[in-house]
Amino acid sequence: MGNTLNFSGGPGALPVAVLNQARDAIVSLPETGISVLGMSHRSDWFLSILDEAEHNIRKLLDLPDRYALAFLQGGSSLLFATIPMNFATRSFAPPEYVSSGYWSSRASAEAGRVGPCRVAWSGQRTGFCDLPELDALDVAANAAYLHYVSNETVEGLQFAEPAREVRADVPPLIADMSSDFLSKPVAVERFGMIYAHAQKNLGPAGVTVVLIDRALLERIPEGLPSILDFRTQVTHRSNYNTPPVFAIYVLTLVTRWLLHDIGGLDAMQRVNEAKARRLYDTLDKLDDVVTVHAARPWRSRMNAAFTFGDERLDAAFIEAARERGIVGVEGHRSLGGLRASLYNAVTLDAVDTLAEALTEFGLQRA
Amino acid sequence: MGNTLNFSGGPGALPVAVLNQARDAIVSLPETGISVLGMSHRSDWFLSILDEAEHNIRKLLDLPDRYALAFLQGGSSLLFATIPMNFATRSFAPPEYVSSGYWSSRASAEAGRVGPCRVAWSGQRTGFCDLPELDALDVAANAAYLHYVSNETVEGLQFAEPAREVRADVPPLIADMSSDFLSKPVAVERFGMIYAHAQKNLGPAGVTVVLIDRALLERIPEGLPSILDFRTQVTHRSNYNTPPVFAIYVLTLVTRWLLHDIGGLDAMQRVNEAKARRLYDTLDKLDDVVTVHAARPWRSRMNAAFTFGDERLDAAFIEAARERGIVGVEGHRSLGGLRASLYNAVTLDAVDTLAEALTEFGLQRA
Repeated sequence: MGNTLNFSGGPGALPVAVLNQARDAIVSLPETGISVLGMSHRSDWFLSILDEAEHNIRKLLDLPDRYALAFLQGGSSLLFATIPMNFATRSFAPPEYVSSGYWSSRASAEAGRVGPCRVAWSGQRTGFCDLPELDALDVAANAAYLHYVSNETVEGLQFAEPAREVRADVPPLIADMSSDFLSKPVAVERFGMIYAHAQKNLGPAGVTVVLIDRALLERIPEGLPSILDFRTQVTHRSNYNTPPVFAIYVLTLVTRWLLHDIGGLDAMQRVNEAKARRLYDTLDKLDDVVTVHAARPWRSRMNAAFTFGDERLDAAFIEAARERGIVGVEGHRSLGGLRASLYNAVTLDAVDTLAEALTEFGLQRA
Repeated sequence: MGNTLNFSGGPGALPVAVLNQARDAIVSLPETGISVLGMSHRSDWFLSILDEAEHNIRKLLDLPDRYALAFLQGGSSLLFATIPMNFATRSFAPPEYVSSGYWSSRASAEAGRVGPCRVAWSGQRTGFCDLPELDALDVAANAAYLHYVSNETVEGLQFAEPAREVRADVPPLIADMSSDFLSKPVAVERFGMIYAHAQKNLGPAGVTVVLIDRALLERIPEGLPSILDFRTQVTHRSNYNTPPVFAIYVLTLVTRWLLHDIGGLDAMQRVNEAKARRLYDTLDKLDDVVTVHAARPWRSRMNAAFTFGDERLDAAFIEAARERGIVGVEGHRSLGGLRASLYNAVTLDAVDTLAEALTEFGLQRA
């Protein structure tokens, strides 16, 4: 029960079929007879895994060739520093940041430690419960880039996909999609760079996927430390230094599951939309005892942040949920309250169980 | 057979008892009933794992309190950049680097991208087959630090432990111990900083242990990106951002194995010395057909680099070894030839099997 009823904000649940395969690989990988943990990163087997991981992601996203793909370590927190180091060069105006929640605010704070940057929009005054229209923001045409976080995991806010096209007079868009990457199709060609750490929808903690328009790679200044220069892992096909072999292996299994078991990102999106509808419908029916943090147009399909009104009630719900085998519904420590994360591996059946628990608990308090 | 006869240079073999426990945790961690891959890094369970990992390493090394310990991502390659960013400040003369092989040369090259540095000794003229006496090196008294790699994994060279004491007129010693950390006791108090990525003796790829004298932390300049400032993970107890949960979990299992199954680092060292003796005795008996790369006084107990004289013979040995179930004896791509890595998890029985294979193959060619 534990894995299927895990609503953790991340590291999140993984598909049971993937867990079973990963388990079998720990002592003896079927293809090699050796533990996946002792496989050389230069082995033919691991090179084929790297190839497949890239191939599967390209296929899932129908990724144009002009995008390079690499697997990095360090999570979003390292990218918060390396993105301005690579792209906020003196030929451009300072990069612009949308500050729409906990994670995007950390991104802009870190960019500010690297060099000048501008906050193009902030949700702080309204308590980070709504989002701007990206396409309507007043951004300098020669800004190095515009950065935003597509899904705010903590506050449960999610952007609609921007309509913008890539044009010379519009700064490239860079999106941290850590908590909604591969949960639905995305028009990658509208972005200069997309990045996502694995521990929501892609695999275990320890690896981050980056997609970068090769035209942007041309802007990188010379002289950065090799490991912080995005060209290094692109050139070395994510094998410049020892990559996190196991995390990339599990990510590959997840992409196989998405392609073959789920049937691609359109199918995944339908499931995710149904799950979110089920959860929000339940919460809306309890609207005299439950408050959803996000304003309605910006509700995230990945994370619902809500509260029964006070700490005592929220703690009582966590306990009631635990009795049904439900785990991971505590809110992020920065916001408190409750949060249910509906990442790809969470099933509609699991959301039904959560919905029942919410309804029973809520009606007792209504 | 595969795991016990894996002589890979890294990621290396792990103890079979650890692999069995790690396998069982993938679908359902005994303590929580949830997959270890879906466990929150803020959960009580993972906080207890972080505590235990630190406690076990402190106990194994009898680590003085003045050393901070943290678990980082990015491997040695990221530390090659961040060490000079943190410690090569303007109050000191440029850091000095011992360039004794493939990895230490990469370390000094990366330091040179961050700022001025000096190569205190280079083994390049003699083909990286010998090592200097660290204590006799002519190093500026006010150098920011002296960096070396304690075991050159590619060339099979290993330093004896330096005799130096920490003194105000001697630069702090910083050692990359990636390939011999926890293979034997170490007098940590002689070092300013020690670091080691996991994928040789500690666990799977994806996590790196750092030990830093807290006095050195005081030298770190303000304004570094948070994730690149060593104080960040020390202050946040390695949980500033999502750590590689699974890699740290397996590392914890390995430290339990070292403490309880092996009986500590003195016992581990005795086993490792016996393994190395067995291998080098075998190679020495074949010295008319085998050449060991390292000069005798500097032979590594962790990695023996050697050759039967040409590519064809080395390839034939790899094939003969494979027939006995032996894997991972290819040399590093930069040096070619053969290499047998004798990390902690490789048993004396496995070395016996390798010795038999070498003797049979060698006598046929003698």
